[in-house]
Amino acid sequence: MSLIAVGTVAFDAIETPFGKTDKIVGGAATYITLAASYFVKQSHLISVIGSDFPEEVLRELSRRGINQDGLEIKEGEKSFFWSGKYHYDLNSRDTLVTELNVLETFEPKVPEAAKDSEYVMLGNLAPQVQMSVIEQLPKRPKLVALDTMNFWMDIAMDDLAKVIAKIDLLTINDEEARQLTREHSLVKAAQKILKMGPRYLIIKKGEHGALLFDDEQVFFAPALPLEDVVDPTGAGDTFAGGMMGYLAHTDDCSFENLKRAVIIGSAMASFTCEAFGTERLMDLTTEAIDHRIQKFVDLVDFDITLVE
Amino acid sequence: MSLIAVGTVAFDAIETPFGKTDKIVGGAATYITLAASYFVKQSHLISVIGSDFPEEVLRELSRRGINQDGLEIKEGEKSFFWSGKYHYDLNSRDTLVTELNVLETFEPKVPEAAKDSEYVMLGNLAPQVQMSVIEQLPKRPKLVALDTMNFWMDIAMDDLAKVIAKIDLLTINDEEARQLTREHSLVKAAQKILKMGPRYLIIKKGEHGALLFDDEQVFFAPALPLEDVVDPTGAGDTFAGGMMGYLAHTDDCSFENLKRAVIIGSAMASFTCEAFGTERLMDLTTEAIDHRIQKFVDLVDFDITLVE
Repeated sequence: MSLIAVGTVAFDAIETPFGKTDKIVGGAATYITLAASYFVKQSHLISVIGSDFPEEVLRELSRRGINQDGLEIKEGEKSFFWSGKYHYDLNSRDTLVTELNVLETFEPKVPEAAKDSEYVMLGNLAPQVQMSVIEQLPKRPKLVALDTMNFWMDIAMDDLAKVIAKIDLLTINDEEARQLTREHSLVKAAQKILKMGPRYLIIKKGEHGALLFDDEQVFFAPALPLEDVVDPTGAGDTFAGGMMGYLAHTDDCSFENLKRAVIIGSAMASFTCEAFGTERLMDLTTEAIDHRIQKFVDLVDFDITLVE
Repeated sequence: MSLIAVGTVAFDAIETPFGKTDKIVGGAATYITLAASYFVKQSHLISVIGSDFPEEVLRELSRRGINQDGLEIKEGEKSFFWSGKYHYDLNSRDTLVTELNVLETFEPKVPEAAKDSEYVMLGNLAPQVQMSVIEQLPKRPKLVALDTMNFWMDIAMDDLAKVIAKIDLLTINDEEARQLTREHSLVKAAQKILKMGPRYLIIKKGEHGALLFDDEQVFFAPALPLEDVVDPTGAGDTFAGGMMGYLAHTDDCSFENLKRAVIIGSAMASFTCEAFGTERLMDLTTEAIDHRIQKFVDLVDFDITLVE
């Protein structure tokens, strides 16, 4: 099945306690489509860049089946740029620079060839922009997933609630789930969020794993304890890309298959953390991915006989 | 197999964002022996109390097979008292009052009947006090487990290192593992700690679950997402008690069985969080425990076919 990914394609400059980069290629939709490319032959990248974006990266994305009919290039303008510095624990970071550039006037256009896509991943963007993508689709896809962040809860809550009502799967982190619902208990927060519209909710907890909820069940996917976390930038988007790529590949939106997709997303995200930017996502093999997924299987595998 | 539990038997006064208690019964060894009592017919409680400790609680512990030959009662003195206030996230707390009272001169004595115990849980106490228990045992037990905290790393690191070298299983939380090793990566921290002596390490992450390491393998036990966490006091000790009770009951110290024991400890700890103090631990049934363990099985259960 075909996949649409909407989000930023950008430059990042990242500082962690373990190193620092100049401007490197990043952006939510970059991570999403790269991670998905290991599972789907084709995806549609919907984004906007300036004329400063490296052509060889675009060629590399093409080579991986990432269709760029929906990628607008604004001549003479600059691509979105974000710079951030991680704290020692790597769970929190400060934004140093945000230059919206081309993103300021971004109006995503879904190309004709993408309009029958059954799987849609809306990366973190203004809720109105996310909504405009849904409105361009002639028929309801099988699964529309949306990522967002606390920033939009602060400044555009009404628009955010409107788009959340239209989607099937919401991914947010634990603090955002608490902010969105004013509930400390993630179980109660999940119940409230599912009442807002989505059929599924994923609460991402970074190095502490992720929780998948529907209105009756809960599943927990661990994060793999890594020897070295170099840079968590893009881990959440990689998670989304691996998950959506797997769902589009298997074309099965059951809770059982969502569980698998969450494990696969977690496995892909663990790779992204091992190097700066998209470096690890660029050179994976099927064997490496299988081996990593097996580590997740082993990590939580136990066989219990209930106490008599 | 018989179990020894060494630690405090005390009074706590607890304030959480959701409620407040007067002085209630608490203490590491109380939680440990109560949790273990669902798995072993007999355990030996080694601790000290004042004459202010309620006799009906001691009778209740006796009724549950908790032998008190090693429980010293200091006439005219007061039991250990701790008072604390939890922050909104329930992951951190401030100590308001610590009155050592009888604990100040505590010299644990292992009673004759306990000396052949094969399973020993040393609750959080001064490392020298923990060591003195090991030194009283005529032969090496099958498994000695030890809990400690950052306080002892700050003021008694040499003694702590000595006792850690003598034990089989260390349980600490993630921040303590990092402090003990000056490693941010828990994988690297675990490698260093296992070189200090223990065969197994458990890193407790509170609401984020627990990691079990030996020198080759890692296992992750999730925490159950709870609708209401009322009071996490004693959760770590309940975890240790459930785990050690199960290990003593099954008399199997393999990594495979440790994994089961960690799940059972996590299940028992989840009960403790649901009410103040030992309230939930007092009224459990085998059915309730089985049902709770099944929730852990379901929580991480997935069936994956590796990607072709």
